[in-house]
Amino acid sequence: MESIVRADGRAVDELRPVTITRHFTDAPEGSVLITCGNTRVMCTATFTPGVPRWRQDSGLGWVTAEYAMLPRATAERTDRESVKGKVGGRTHEISRLIGRCLRGVVDMRALGENQVQMDCDVLQADGGTRTASVTGAYVALVDAMRWAEAHGHIESADKVLKDVVSAVSVGVIDGTPMLDLPYPEDSRAMTDMNVAMTGSGTFIEIQGTAEHRPFNRAELNTLLDLAEKGNRELQAAQRAALAEG
Amino acid sequence: MESIVRADGRAVDELRPVTITRHFTDAPEGSVLITCGNTRVMCTATFTPGVPRWRQDSGLGWVTAEYAMLPRATAERTDRESVKGKVGGRTHEISRLIGRCLRGVVDMRALGENQVQMDCDVLQADGGTRTASVTGAYVALVDAMRWAEAHGHIESADKVLKDVVSAVSVGVIDGTPMLDLPYPEDSRAMTDMNVAMTGSGTFIEIQGTAEHRPFNRAELNTLLDLAEKGNRELQAAQRAALAEG
Amino acid sequence: MESIVRADGRAVDELRPVTITRHFTDAPEGSVLITCGNTRVMCTATFTPGVPRWRQDSGLGWVTAEYAMLPRATAERTDRESVKGKVGGRTHEISRLIGRCLRGVVDMRALGENQVQMDCDVLQADGGTRTASVTGAYVALVDAMRWAEAHGHIESADKVLKDVVSAVSVGVIDGTPMLDLPYPEDSRAMTDMNVAMTGSGTFIEIQGTAEHRPFNRAELNTLLDLAEKGNRELQAAQRAALAEG
Amino acid sequence: MESIVRADGRAVDELRPVTITRHFTDAPEGSVLITCGNTRVMCTATFTPGVPRWRQDSGLGWVTAEYAMLPRATAERTDRESVKGKVGGRTHEISRLIGRCLRGVVDMRALGENQVQMDCDVLQADGGTRTASVTGAYVALVDAMRWAEAHGHIESADKVLKDVVSAVSVGVIDGTPMLDLPYPEDSRAMTDMNVAMTGSGTFIEIQGTAEHRPFNRAELNTLLDLAEKGNRELQAAQRAALAEG
Amino acid sequence: MESIVRADGRAVDELRPVTITRHFTDAPEGSVLITCGNTRVMCTATFTPGVPRWRQDSGLGWVTAEYAMLPRATAERTDRESVKGKVGGRTHEISRLIGRCLRGVVDMRALGENQVQMDCDVLQADGGTRTASVTGAYVALVDAMRWAEAHGHIESADKVLKDVVSAVSVGVIDGTPMLDLPYPEDSRAMTDMNVAMTGSGTFIEIQGTAEHRPFNRAELNTLLDLAEKGNRELQAAQRAALAEG
Amino acid sequence: MESIVRADGRAVDELRPVTITRHFTDAPEGSVLITCGNTRVMCTATFTPGVPRWRQDSGLGWVTAEYAMLPRATAERTDRESVKGKVGGRTHEISRLIGRCLRGVVDMRALGENQVQMDCDVLQADGGTRTASVTGAYVALVDAMRWAEAHGHIESADKVLKDVVSAVSVGVIDGTPMLDLPYPEDSRAMTDMNVAMTGSGTFIEIQGTAEHRPFNRAELNTLLDLAEKGNRELQAAQRAALAEG
Repeated sequence: MESIVRADGRAVDELRPVTITRHFTDAPEGSVLITCGNTRVMCTATFTPGVPRWRQDSGLGWVTAEYAMLPRATAERTDRESVKGKVGGRTHEISRLIGRCLRGVVDMRALGENQVQMDCDVLQADGGTRTASVTGAYVALVDAMRWAEAHGHIESADKVLKDVVSAVSVGVIDGTPMLDLPYPEDSRAMTDMNVAMTGSGTFIEIQGTAEHRPFNRAELNTLLDLAEKGNRELQAAQRAALAEG
Repeated sequence: MESIVRADGRAVDELRPVTITRHFTDAPEGSVLITCGNTRVMCTATFTPGVPRWRQDSGLGWVTAEYAMLPRATAERTDRESVKGKVGGRTHEISRLIGRCLRGVVDMRALGENQVQMDCDVLQADGGTRTASVTGAYVALVDAMRWAEAHGHIESADKVLKDVVSAVSVGVIDGTPMLDLPYPEDSRAMTDMNVAMTGSGTFIEIQGTAEHRPFNRAELNTLLDLAEKGNRELQAAQRAALAEG
Repeated sequence: MESIVRADGRAVDELRPVTITRHFTDAPEGSVLITCGNTRVMCTATFTPGVPRWRQDSGLGWVTAEYAMLPRATAERTDRESVKGKVGGRTHEISRLIGRCLRGVVDMRALGENQVQMDCDVLQADGGTRTASVTGAYVALVDAMRWAEAHGHIESADKVLKDVVSAVSVGVIDGTPMLDLPYPEDSRAMTDMNVAMTGSGTFIEIQGTAEHRPFNRAELNTLLDLAEKGNRELQAAQRAALAEG
Repeated sequence: MESIVRADGRAVDELRPVTITRHFTDAPEGSVLITCGNTRVMCTATFTPGVPRWRQDSGLGWVTAEYAMLPRATAERTDRESVKGKVGGRTHEISRLIGRCLRGVVDMRALGENQVQMDCDVLQADGGTRTASVTGAYVALVDAMRWAEAHGHIESADKVLKDVVSAVSVGVIDGTPMLDLPYPEDSRAMTDMNVAMTGSGTFIEIQGTAEHRPFNRAELNTLLDLAEKGNRELQAAQRAALAEG
Repeated sequence: MESIVRADGRAVDELRPVTITRHFTDAPEGSVLITCGNTRVMCTATFTPGVPRWRQDSGLGWVTAEYAMLPRATAERTDRESVKGKVGGRTHEISRLIGRCLRGVVDMRALGENQVQMDCDVLQADGGTRTASVTGAYVALVDAMRWAEAHGHIESADKVLKDVVSAVSVGVIDGTPMLDLPYPEDSRAMTDMNVAMTGSGTFIEIQGTAEHRPFNRAELNTLLDLAEKGNRELQAAQRAALAEG
Repeated sequence: MESIVRADGRAVDELRPVTITRHFTDAPEGSVLITCGNTRVMCTATFTPGVPRWRQDSGLGWVTAEYAMLPRATAERTDRESVKGKVGGRTHEISRLIGRCLRGVVDMRALGENQVQMDCDVLQADGGTRTASVTGAYVALVDAMRWAEAHGHIESADKVLKDVVSAVSVGVIDGTPMLDLPYPEDSRAMTDMNVAMTGSGTFIEIQGTAEHRPFNRAELNTLLDLAEKGNRELQAAQRAALAEG
């Protein structure tokens, strides 16, 4: 497998370069810029005491996420959803995925009746924006929890965060399973899978889709192996970023 | 595993009773009522010559799907999305899933510049509405393709349909992997997975989510085994329905 | 008049075959499928304790209705109003008509501060969907009131329901007044009238429209005679359905 | 019947004072201010060569209407539908009624492929706004047709206008049928009916509704007699206005 | 400068004829029809005890404004924003301008926790609709304050109204600064400025825009001189109107 | 005046530090990040051959702008306008201002039938976001014009750009006129003015508003002096940025 060289020179099981910048902006309780190759996503975590009405008096917290692309994050300009007056299906789908991934590592009882709203805004898109959002959002979430602990809103950030979560895309390109697809690969993929994994190596989300050619159990297993490798490396980057400051 | 008895008396690897009624209504080119236990979905396929503008002059066809729940399909009434003035995130997510599953078995070149719009309207919801929609929609799609062949819009229904597709939900309830979750199980599931499989046993969609407790590779494999068994039985029901009339 | 034979073989003063199926789905407090010829409407009644804010502390209940067509109820697919983001004028007009008809037979004081939301969803449309909705909705309303009485929400279903209501369409086709128009007749009608009548033979709604040729008092009287006959027969069908189970 | 005196001193079969001002504003092809008692409606007719896409190449014209209330036409301010982002059910219902009434007297073939858009904006509301709109709109329509004839868009205004149309409300108040209800009467009416009549005494629209107490054939006939009298007088006012200038 | 004669015969520093009609309609607490040449705007002030939630318990009042055009106020019909389902940018911009101008002369503490909603609806548009709205709205505001004083909602209208406000447009046409531009001049203006001035000669709003040719300090000063002259004359008209009745 | 020291240590006539980063992202034809103190705006210019329908066959180009804030650009999170389903009044107002400023320096005939869509997205807001948007957008516009010249879409970037444009805010704080207001000053300003100026020192936009205390001619002149000084310095920063690379 290693003899295949990708357009950008990577091996099939190699991540694109990742950088995670914390405190990217000043106002949010957590603010992270994550870059995965040319993909750049700004993830801001807003901590608010209190929960939505349907969750009140439950003793439990809540975490939601909203994803969006700036109009010219892409090669062709995309019309603003605010101007169109409605949120599109893709945006909804990705926002919900990010929310589920974050909730999968949060102890809602330890969070108490507090809410975190995560905003993931894509400044530049080159494939893997939803998985970069999950990976960056986790770091912003940690910062928001540390802030909440420091400000006495929660007892302990560590208790709220049951585990780490990161996500990466994998796919089959021309019959070859590959890790971390940039846009040119993603658009040619026969099968495309996004895998969100915890620090303990278990899965929170697996979304595999094969509009172009179905995949079998063997391919699935290879893709999951690649995703595990990628997620372990992304979690190292998360840890490194969180160790600073 | 067999000693566990579920609330409805089924074994853990047992589907709910399935019925597939073709020609449920008269106007659509394909019209199917599928019931999976108490879940009932009406799937209608609309065949239209021509494709959307962005697809014109490609020689390729297009297949989309829209999913919706009637207001009182559920125990509590759900406000209509038409009255709210927007389509919700869950609806968008499921509509897109159904569309991808159907496109995964359609040869767009054989379909030619024709479009199929699949509508899946849930009359009664008791878990598994999205997977029942996929399973029922495939049968409606076959009928629409037979209609299109009979009316000279396509050369051959068999050429358009590269394979069969069905879908089923699986999940881990109190630590036990189970097949085909009704609503009371679904709402308690630690892990929930929807698996769309072709007749040749490959996957078109795998969507596993674990907001409540992450799952490991071993559990994933057990769930996929259950899903394969369930899908094989659903495909038998599809074949039986299509053999009639 | 009797010598005229309609396309479907009926006499000019003859209803299409009517069937009324109660308990069509499980969740709603009242759930009815009504078929009038090829028109099929699902009517579900949702009973909720409490009333909207503007009605609070009045001691009075409230009844509303929403009407909608499934996309492929018609020969050509109709775009979903949820996707278009707004409810159309025709839908609004019919929803309001159904609501007024039901309120016309309800004693709001006997209902107390409780609300009934009626949903009429057209599964298949062949003319007369609004009048079939009224006729079916009344039966669903009775079931909801019986449920509310059995569950102690109201004192007596009989006291809430002051009278029966049904509705039927009549129209002038090629100069001949006719009862219960299917779509092919409806679209050719010079004059079209919907008449909602109580069990005591009085009127709750008369909506006559004549875009194509105005009508005089004599024609009006003939149409009302036809409508009275049709409504009396529909009310017999309502009584028969309600006598079961 | 004559001994009953209404709050405003009128006899039960007496219209409120009517004034019809043509050329109320300069830009529209027809512009009329109609006052019926305290109700004031501005009706503007916009003539445009060409018809909507679905009507093209039919040789036929088209007439539509839009009704709206200014926010403070009423005792309590009504929020703008533009700000709410949607047109309400009542507005839709009335707009459609006005459109049907006008189309009922227009020969679409004589109009040719031209369109008239009628706008009825209520400056002040005191009952009967929809019927005043119909009556005023007809005069604006005549002016627009005369303009179109003068500018060579149509051959003859007289050929387009097959007949006159006016409308008036009638209702039963405390058991007494009355003509032309102002708001205080309208809101107490047991039965409320709007009747649009042609110059030849035939009906284009009859909309009777009885949320509060159903009506019988005898009452219906009395109401129709009142409506005929009222419409004949309104048509005299239309003729007088059109005879000027 | 005086030798230039404008299309309508005015001198460059001459206002169009202004009329201000109070009590134009009955329901609003303030109701004014203002005409500036052919521009006609209806301004209604709605006084409501209480303020929006965000302003509660502040002891302060609130004033807002909404501006709209009737569809056929203009030479070509403009689609209704209610039908389009959204308020356009120009409408938003003007509504906000009017609100700021009115708030600029209101003592919010003297108003107390009461709200005024100003509606400015353009019946006929011939340039300067936003400035006519401000000038007319001020008069409607005074009437609403007098009403509120008379009804004991506020202590004193005079204390609420710190000053007078009026507004007028000025612009540079073919190099010549001119006062009060009708539409044909406005559309040709190189520079266009709206100036809202108090009775004491200070400014509340200056909005100058020069899409077609930038302006320098000298031109700015000439335009402001013209605007001062115009506003002083408009304020005389306001005073005259308010002195009546 | 110089003895007053502002909260951030600046003199009253001193700009906040400005940085202009070109080529901030890869996809757009012009992409600029501008920071003015803590305010950070990303300005991307999209060049598209062709113009909107209403502009076709005019030989003229078109330039528009859209402004938006990321949800957590501010101290409190702002709900997304896409989720609310409508663009707010403030957003509309600012988008229109930016568009007018850019069009004020563009020769539409030299641009030819090509369109530029400018997107200004505020990553972090600390006052002056609209003026920073104008200043940054101009630089992105220059880059887009250079790109268009290099790719043969226009003859000459220099001919399209008739002049430079920048913008800055000024205001009166506690009686003292000051340049370039950060949020804490802006929210306390009695008078607030945004001034867009060309390289030749003429004005394209002056928007002064005084909800809290009107301003007189003398204050206006002082504010304009400050704005001229500020704009001259901003234009130096623009030139410096454009001289690179």
